[in-house]
Amino acid sequence: MSGFVYLVGAGPGDPKLITVRGAEVLGLADVVVYDRLASPALLELAPSAERVYAGKEPGRAAMRQEQIDSLLVDRATAGEVVVRLKGGDPYVFGRGGEEALACARAGVPFEVVPGVSSAIAAPAAAGIPVTHRGVAQSFTVVTVSTAHGDDVDLASAARSADTLVLLMAAGRLEETCRSLIEAGRPDDEPAAIVQWATTPDQRHVVGTLADLPALALAASIGPPATLVVGHVVAVAEELDRLRSAIPSAAR
Amino acid sequence: MSGFVYLVGAGPGDPKLITVRGAEVLGLADVVVYDRLASPALLELAPSAERVYAGKEPGRAAMRQEQIDSLLVDRATAGEVVVRLKGGDPYVFGRGGEEALACARAGVPFEVVPGVSSAIAAPAAAGIPVTHRGVAQSFTVVTVSTAHGDDVDLASAARSADTLVLLMAAGRLEETCRSLIEAGRPDDEPAAIVQWATTPDQRHVVGTLADLPALALAASIGPPATLVVGHVVAVAEELDRLRSAIPSAAR
Repeated sequence: MSGFVYLVGAGPGDPKLITVRGAEVLGLADVVVYDRLASPALLELAPSAERVYAGKEPGRAAMRQEQIDSLLVDRATAGEVVVRLKGGDPYVFGRGGEEALACARAGVPFEVVPGVSSAIAAPAAAGIPVTHRGVAQSFTVVTVSTAHGDDVDLASAARSADTLVLLMAAGRLEETCRSLIEAGRPDDEPAAIVQWATTPDQRHVVGTLADLPALALAASIGPPATLVVGHVVAVAEELDRLRSAIPSAAR
Repeated sequence: MSGFVYLVGAGPGDPKLITVRGAEVLGLADVVVYDRLASPALLELAPSAERVYAGKEPGRAAMRQEQIDSLLVDRATAGEVVVRLKGGDPYVFGRGGEEALACARAGVPFEVVPGVSSAIAAPAAAGIPVTHRGVAQSFTVVTVSTAHGDDVDLASAARSADTLVLLMAAGRLEETCRSLIEAGRPDDEPAAIVQWATTPDQRHVVGTLADLPALALAASIGPPATLVVGHVVAVAEELDRLRSAIPSAAR
């Protein structure tokens, strides 16, 4: 018996946004080690597998990263097929690199199955393309949370690209928007925050860097949420305007 | 009969890296309008659909964007279910925003089905996470090609994030690396270029900003290719080193 670890991106929320390969390897799993942001519906693709919750609640970790690494390695070494199911993509703030290195150090074979990242799909779900001809030719992705334990250099990110995408942005939205303005982004630059993107609970609020925190507070937007800043937000407003002009029977 | 347009991301190359939703809507298609970088194997998911090639070869367009927009709208208006299948993600340099706006302007209902972007999956396929604890807390994505017709501000991108990902980078690799060095990235910064990521033809070369162009030329790396710049490239080198220490029978 030879064990194996699959590091699988679950995608942004909608269980149908996992890849075909991700769904396929879930069906091979003896054990699924899953995160808070991986859709529970995906566990049904591994009906007979053992389920281990390794998710992090905001502000605290359910299981330390070292414990997760050991779990993956120990189970695979014992001959089990392990699926590590993570929200979004394993290599976008998913600590997939650490898990891959842990497997490689232990001589455990593994495969990384990428997922649709919320960094791109959360804005898209609100009608916002991260790039758009004549509007945005680049985008920068950063996380507001310090789950990595590293400092986040928002000022440097602010000066970087046409579109900014900030993951895990709900908890410190006012502080984040203020930092971006102080770093030189115009306070009237369009901004949107999208909560529970691609799920039935999806909601989003559109405003400017100056007024978005108050609008999001009034709308009770909380985690998990993605902040997107840039003129691409206007594409969504244009889509909404055009769609509202369509008779509802034709929508 | 009511037509519909699905703007679908085909993912980075491997046909199993399309989403479950993307595969599902291909099965509904009356017509598939596809790009050069969408895997031909995916067309088999729509066996009875008409196939229209709208891909762009490097340096010339097979079909102008306005023609593609009109095709989508005209077919859907005639009652057909249209799948617009694009390599990667429709909203990452995929002109999906323009196609969405064309649909909305014409009153054609549409859905955007995101895809795994090569911006993240091409580095991952070479063992490179775009973020990594203690190494990279942000990444910027830009395209080197001017398919959008806009100027690309490489200097600004260069100063932005820990990790830089440059799409469509093969054609102007030497010029691109030189621009990044002139803009302040160290000439000994690790860099890698990945061609045909996630396909059986995948190849990659690792070097520094200074020597990568010569190494890529010697290895005949051509389009389509993704350039990734940053210390995350060292994660792949560490993975390769660890894996080569594993007896081949256990790999």
